Amino acid sequence: MSTKIDIPAESSAAAKGKAPLIGMVSSSSSTNEKGGFKKGIAILDFLLRIGAIVTALSAAGTMGASGETLPFFTQFFQFEAGYDDLPALQFFVVAMAVVGGYLVLSLPFSIVTIIRPHAVGPRLLLLIFDTVALTLNTSAAAAATAIVYLAHNGNEDANWLAICVQFGDFCQQISGAVIAAFVSAVVLVVLVIISGVALRRQN
Amino acid sequence: MSTKIDIPAESSAAAKGKAPLIGMVSSSSSTNEKGGFKKGIAILDFLLRIGAIVTALSAAGTMGASGETLPFFTQFFQFEAGYDDLPALQFFVVAMAVVGGYLVLSLPFSIVTIIRPHAVGPRLLLLIFDTVALTLNTSAAAAATAIVYLAHNGNEDANWLAICVQFGDFCQQISGAVIAAFVSAVVLVVLVIISGVALRRQN
Repeated sequence: MSTKIDIPAESSAAAKGKAPLIGMVSSSSSTNEKGGFKKGIAILDFLLRIGAIVTALSAAGTMGASGETLPFFTQFFQFEAGYDDLPALQFFVVAMAVVGGYLVLSLPFSIVTIIRPHAVGPRLLLLIFDTVALTLNTSAAAAATAIVYLAHNGNEDANWLAICVQFGDFCQQISGAVIAAFVSAVVLVVLVIISGVALRRQN
Repeated sequence: MSTKIDIPAESSAAAKGKAPLIGMVSSSSSTNEKGGFKKGIAILDFLLRIGAIVTALSAAGTMGASGETLPFFTQFFQFEAGYDDLPALQFFVVAMAVVGGYLVLSLPFSIVTIIRPHAVGPRLLLLIFDTVALTLNTSAAAAATAIVYLAHNGNEDANWLAICVQFGDFCQQISGAVIAAFVSAVVLVVLVIISGVALRRQN
């Protein structure tokens, strides 16, 4: 990283004026080494983004499809549990679907950073929106975790009973969805850090 | 931002080799305009950081001090509620204290970026750890929110009763703490974005 690269003074000076707006096309030939590193980072970003899409959407899907109806019922009452009984799990489905949708929409910008490794605009845009998506993803995962924990363990002091005793399958489904959401949150943290590294001064 | 600045070719070339390690001391005089912008951003970062410290620590403190004992009791039982009855709220206290502690420790690095607006190392370090702190802060706030919501409203389907009916003061305290945590999360999002903007190529 700290090796000295000889850059012709003229092409570097020409790039200084244009770079933030149209990418460093004119000087891309003189900064091959850095360009290769940036391109590698951009490809890694793209692959991680696809992984995050899969985990985020599968988290939303698993949670959205979760539900269990017990095989016995009384005259007035059938025992069933679903994610829509608990507001935190409803929020989880919506938030993870939004995060997955955003990640799909962000793919073109990620491709732009592969083609133009020195373009600052798309990279900064990705950093900002990735940070917001990370916040949404984390809050969905954490709120659902608090409820899933309660469903598993209950709480004696508040007199909240563990519903997982009856609804075992339901609890397994929502636990899986929460784990997928945490994986996608970790990938988003890595994506934000990657954007930060790629934004470093590259001369 | 897109104004063309005349930078003497020699001093800029000399800075290229050294900048990532010791800051752009040699060229700071020739990039006054950009340096001023970066310095302004760094000062804003410092002020926001102090604000986040106050909100994060007050969130942890308010939650840690929360508790209520009802003025009546039976022979065997005294009715009291505290944050340590609920694991999500315990996590909240620990996580917000950690975030507050990290923010205090990050102040020196923020000061370094004020003194040396072009130094990349401290800025990247702040971006990475701010992102991690943001994740911790958001998860604490969201998990506590799920529980506070449950305490306020209860849940008929899971047969969880609203404990705020009895413990009104306690619920007000924990709600306040959660709001403070969300304020600190928003400030952390802004800090991450500020770091991203400051990391842009500055030539």
